[in-house]
Amino acid sequence: MEKSIQDTIHGVIKLEDWMVEIVDTPQFQRLRRINQLGFANLVYPGANHTRFEHSLGVMHVTRILQERMGFDDVVVAAALLHDVGHAPFSHGSERLLEKYASYNHETISKVVRGELKDVLKNLGFRISEIEAIVTGKRRSVVNGEIDADRMDYLVRDSHYTGVAYGVFDIYRLIDKIKFDGAVVIEQGGVKAAESLLISRFLMYPTVYFHHVCRIARKMYERAMERIIEAGFEAENLLEMDDVDAMMLLKEKERETYDRLNNRRLFKRAIYVSRRSLDFREVMRTSERRAEREVAEMAGVDERYVIVDIPPVEEMRESGVMVDTESGLKPLEEVSPLVKALKDAAVENWRLGVYTDRRFVDKVGKAAADYFGIEKVVQKSLDEIFPQ
Amino acid sequence: MEKSIQDTIHGVIKLEDWMVEIVDTPQFQRLRRINQLGFANLVYPGANHTRFEHSLGVMHVTRILQERMGFDDVVVAAALLHDVGHAPFSHGSERLLEKYASYNHETISKVVRGELKDVLKNLGFRISEIEAIVTGKRRSVVNGEIDADRMDYLVRDSHYTGVAYGVFDIYRLIDKIKFDGAVVIEQGGVKAAESLLISRFLMYPTVYFHHVCRIARKMYERAMERIIEAGFEAENLLEMDDVDAMMLLKEKERETYDRLNNRRLFKRAIYVSRRSLDFREVMRTSERRAEREVAEMAGVDERYVIVDIPPVEEMRESGVMVDTESGLKPLEEVSPLVKALKDAAVENWRLGVYTDRRFVDKVGKAAADYFGIEKVVQKSLDEIFPQ
Amino acid sequence: MEKSIQDTIHGVIKLEDWMVEIVDTPQFQRLRRINQLGFANLVYPGANHTRFEHSLGVMHVTRILQERMGFDDVVVAAALLHDVGHAPFSHGSERLLEKYASYNHETISKVVRGELKDVLKNLGFRISEIEAIVTGKRRSVVNGEIDADRMDYLVRDSHYTGVAYGVFDIYRLIDKIKFDGAVVIEQGGVKAAESLLISRFLMYPTVYFHHVCRIARKMYERAMERIIEAGFEAENLLEMDDVDAMMLLKEKERETYDRLNNRRLFKRAIYVSRRSLDFREVMRTSERRAEREVAEMAGVDERYVIVDIPPVEEMRESGVMVDTESGLKPLEEVSPLVKALKDAAVENWRLGVYTDRRFVDKVGKAAADYFGIEKVVQKSLDEIFPQ
Amino acid sequence: MEKSIQDTIHGVIKLEDWMVEIVDTPQFQRLRRINQLGFANLVYPGANHTRFEHSLGVMHVTRILQERMGFDDVVVAAALLHDVGHAPFSHGSERLLEKYASYNHETISKVVRGELKDVLKNLGFRISEIEAIVTGKRRSVVNGEIDADRMDYLVRDSHYTGVAYGVFDIYRLIDKIKFDGAVVIEQGGVKAAESLLISRFLMYPTVYFHHVCRIARKMYERAMERIIEAGFEAENLLEMDDVDAMMLLKEKERETYDRLNNRRLFKRAIYVSRRSLDFREVMRTSERRAEREVAEMAGVDERYVIVDIPPVEEMRESGVMVDTESGLKPLEEVSPLVKALKDAAVENWRLGVYTDRRFVDKVGKAAADYFGIEKVVQKSLDEIFPQ
Repeated sequence: MEKSIQDTIHGVIKLEDWMVEIVDTPQFQRLRRINQLGFANLVYPGANHTRFEHSLGVMHVTRILQERMGFDDVVVAAALLHDVGHAPFSHGSERLLEKYASYNHETISKVVRGELKDVLKNLGFRISEIEAIVTGKRRSVVNGEIDADRMDYLVRDSHYTGVAYGVFDIYRLIDKIKFDGAVVIEQGGVKAAESLLISRFLMYPTVYFHHVCRIARKMYERAMERIIEAGFEAENLLEMDDVDAMMLLKEKERETYDRLNNRRLFKRAIYVSRRSLDFREVMRTSERRAEREVAEMAGVDERYVIVDIPPVEEMRESGVMVDTESGLKPLEEVSPLVKALKDAAVENWRLGVYTDRRFVDKVGKAAADYFGIEKVVQKSLDEIFPQ
Repeated sequence: MEKSIQDTIHGVIKLEDWMVEIVDTPQFQRLRRINQLGFANLVYPGANHTRFEHSLGVMHVTRILQERMGFDDVVVAAALLHDVGHAPFSHGSERLLEKYASYNHETISKVVRGELKDVLKNLGFRISEIEAIVTGKRRSVVNGEIDADRMDYLVRDSHYTGVAYGVFDIYRLIDKIKFDGAVVIEQGGVKAAESLLISRFLMYPTVYFHHVCRIARKMYERAMERIIEAGFEAENLLEMDDVDAMMLLKEKERETYDRLNNRRLFKRAIYVSRRSLDFREVMRTSERRAEREVAEMAGVDERYVIVDIPPVEEMRESGVMVDTESGLKPLEEVSPLVKALKDAAVENWRLGVYTDRRFVDKVGKAAADYFGIEKVVQKSLDEIFPQ
Repeated sequence: MEKSIQDTIHGVIKLEDWMVEIVDTPQFQRLRRINQLGFANLVYPGANHTRFEHSLGVMHVTRILQERMGFDDVVVAAALLHDVGHAPFSHGSERLLEKYASYNHETISKVVRGELKDVLKNLGFRISEIEAIVTGKRRSVVNGEIDADRMDYLVRDSHYTGVAYGVFDIYRLIDKIKFDGAVVIEQGGVKAAESLLISRFLMYPTVYFHHVCRIARKMYERAMERIIEAGFEAENLLEMDDVDAMMLLKEKERETYDRLNNRRLFKRAIYVSRRSLDFREVMRTSERRAEREVAEMAGVDERYVIVDIPPVEEMRESGVMVDTESGLKPLEEVSPLVKALKDAAVENWRLGVYTDRRFVDKVGKAAADYFGIEKVVQKSLDEIFPQ
Repeated sequence: MEKSIQDTIHGVIKLEDWMVEIVDTPQFQRLRRINQLGFANLVYPGANHTRFEHSLGVMHVTRILQERMGFDDVVVAAALLHDVGHAPFSHGSERLLEKYASYNHETISKVVRGELKDVLKNLGFRISEIEAIVTGKRRSVVNGEIDADRMDYLVRDSHYTGVAYGVFDIYRLIDKIKFDGAVVIEQGGVKAAESLLISRFLMYPTVYFHHVCRIARKMYERAMERIIEAGFEAENLLEMDDVDAMMLLKEKERETYDRLNNRRLFKRAIYVSRRSLDFREVMRTSERRAEREVAEMAGVDERYVIVDIPPVEEMRESGVMVDTESGLKPLEEVSPLVKALKDAAVENWRLGVYTDRRFVDKVGKAAADYFGIEKVVQKSLDEIFPQ
């Protein structure tokens, strides 16, 4: 029986029978219990939305695109399932999966088990094909340079954080993209594409890489690493939700559990942009080794030192092609703004060293020595909610 | 240090130092982990907002009113703390507290312990005074007929469910109320007050009493009753969050845990309005006893029968006074609409009997016999999301 | 060539070729220059929207309904053209048309001339059929009890006045209505229908019948009456826009022109609800005759006395049928709220006597005598913007 | 008596007595009848908002800033009056004023006459001081690099056009600016300032410089030039509203009047970016002379050739200073994005040659010859509403 679900972003989302079958499996229902933005609710109290509603939203956008472009239902199924491989706290567990299970949230074939597997088989979908779409090996509107995923999450994350930067007009962009082996923008859609890129550019430091989110995520990550290294099987994360993960912490890593619950987070001892250090050298450094050495230099327990060397955000969109009067051209070439954003994006990167409030000074000095920089905590570009 | 928090409803909410001290206690931080609407996210996937942000919102509205009316900071403190007594899933645990701990979420003195107690003492607030404000014993804008609580939650619940019915203009109403022992509306504010009442009237069947929310809540309630009756101390609920409650279910009531997680909920076997039955008789019936007898008549395990006799929603607002040219008059007298809403509200009431999908027919028949009605599941007035 | 227009309410509105042909005629373009709410911008400065965008909006809603219900394109054409018969300031000229041209804005066949007539003929539409739909003689979703017209204007008027009361969820209602000779609501749509009715109920005193809007409208009406009675052909109004009408005033009724432009409006000398007077008697009174007599009694020029006896707002929606388990039933019977609204609506009615600021007292006394009431200006229920 | 006005952007705007006195003058009321965006409603049908509501909005933002910064009321008065010098269709008449009256909309002393002059005098404001603030000679939050004017219009223009690009969070920026001889941004406000700049960058080609708006504006401009050159006094424009201007066209330039009313606009014969031509040479060209010569070459009446060489949009914001750890630095230096936007802004510039539909080809060829380019109409970057 067809179903309607009230969505805060798109209004009424309709589900056909076959979608309902997928949504009703325990594997998909698990997404209800996985926070879309991990620990961002420690900064933005409204950020409690889940992978469940986001997945419905991406499916909805994909269907609108399907009406215009006429592709196969398997792409819609992939849209629905593109995040079914997320572990607790979404990207919060991503490094754990990569490190201990040679896995990431896009290799969904690993989590497609039980009922979900049966349902997909009955519906005639091949799991390998869905995975190819989700990972982008098979190009589609689901995982490409400008995709349905991004169109949904920028607006959704904006709605729930209250940060207006994420607002751009999905439907305007939808009207101006086409698919020709890859997603291509019609020339009249350049402004809309720029708008999406800008939203993303602004959301990074403000939400996705807000230092408090980074600190909470890394505290969780380190605690889980210790649990895994003590024998817990990392693959289990694929069947867990946020509740399970918190209970695991409560049992095995009580201090981290209490700190996350009571918002007694580590503070920044070092927080510097790439200009202040030998960037290439730093990118080759092992976080865990650096933590050990800094901890020793500072004379504090290694548990109280977290070194955060985030990856550089890649602007995949710069590869989007625009259909101009003189043939397909990269968006980056047509739009000087996109090129500028790409260049400016690296400015958002920060090396962070975090520690307990009591040790900020000595850990800061040791880390400064270790990385050969001045001890400094630069203000964020967005210190409106420094917390 | 003054703090700013980005709120999805009110924008930037400012916290003075003394508020930060309260907010930073573990007792207050617990509210981050208590869902504002219990199990409503099973119907509205976006409804994951918490008592934490709502409490900040009520405090914010109260401060705006304080600027106009000039009352004491203790009222603002009470606004901040008015929900600190909520147990897991908010109203989902309310009956448990009342039944097994002679307590409700407004008797906050029971949960004001530890750090929170110390902080309040240091700030010079008397807990008994705060409780008097929260319960309404001392009249204020926090708990009255038209209050800051309601002004926040109607708009907030609307934002997160996506149901437009809750939208009314808080700020317009704020401009037209005054305090004179009790909240009084200036005559020019009657339309704004009507608007608030209507929002509430429409939200009841659509959100607060949606049958799926009722079913999930009652399933949780019954499982917790069994746990408590087997020896678990009900008072513990006051220190638990949603995560703790789910873990308790996982351990002791695995079936309910799985059903809630996988959205395998009971179905309606009976669902009728008051017109179809002897209302006064039914209101005197014990749910648990009725369940036992219906189960026996139907030949199914008592665990599979839930009888839901909800209280009649009281429209306290009908007591609000309006400052008219001919003196203070009850809003109900000035506004025929308010009287009409009050009368119509009882039409939203439903007697529900819920059971496993397999037993709908026989439980329905037994319950029909038991209550002396025809077996019937009336459509909801709002069956847009029948789910 | 298909066209897209960016609408503030519905987002992108698409026009097929044949619609573009209609829209591009001078007769339709005239709607760009006719204010949707007449003189409401004297109270709500943002209320400058026009019949043009509203007409596109109604067409858009009608097309969504067409997809569900499958009716003929002539209904869509009627939706587009349903307001093409409006004269300057929309309802502001309605009485003039009725009185001097035996016409109202729905008898559109009178204005369908020139290019528009040719285009409709070429497209194969019969004008008489379109008119039958617009007037409601042929029942459809365009002019019925719950119709596309209302669904658009409530939300649109809310957007441009900033009054949140008008917000309800169009798309939710659209999903729950069907057409079966007349518009019928499915039982699950009762709440959505109530919501629309409530919005309308609240918008009446706040926007549509705000006393300042009434005063400005009646000042315009009286000035135009004098111009018409001095020889101006009332039928000309059908080809005029707001600019033309203001220029006519500038030339022939300079005082009214200046007063409207500079917002030097008449004030209320009498403003009372139906309870305070012999309602049936008053409804039989001629405004113009009453003005003459009151003016004489007060000793002021007749131009300075305006008597405003508005028609009683009819709640046509009470006739909507709901498809219940026990057959079609009137909405009014299914929903006690609707009945209540209908009863309460008459409470919004006011008799007004307006005059220049200098004469408020003596005109008030004379009018009180004339109507046999106490001289009184009751506060509006909505005095937030008394102006 | 204090007044409240309902604004669609800021909600309730409060006016103190002295503001009411200013607002109630005919000079200020005239702003109700001047469209904020000139002819943009020919593209965006909702864009009918006026200088009146924008002026109230800027005043409102200025008062919020006043609370934080503590400046004098004269700045608030200047905010209210900053656009009182606009002529019909706002910027649509700007060139006419500059050319024929050596005047622009900021030299408000010329329009401050009659009642407004008396009111200001009585209130103790010096007109020269107000003008100094409006023109920016005296630095303030009203006319600077980042100012209250811009904060209001970006959000307002977005609301009424339906273009989401303009949405940024005013209140977040307000919280992060201070005044120290000039407006200075605190370091934590860089992201918010970037957001405002980006909104503006995107609104330019989409709204402010949409080619249809340019065409309509230039058609109006040329018609008015002919009227002025035939003896009409340009200074009169300062007392006229949009209605007066349209009536003037109706009388003296009937063809332009009909074309604007019926949306029978000129089309683009040439539309090229600066890369395609000798930019410095073109910027030195006289539009009118070019029109004459192109018309002659093409063999069409000069009235049917419009050459549009818009000024290059200046990004004044690049001069804003940021208060960083190492002292005040230009925003452009702190934010690579701002520098990029400045560089990219010139890409939005277009040379346009417009003519009647019938002459597009021959005028295009002649103009191509004249400017030494290929005949070409480049697609706009934003061709979603090419119309």
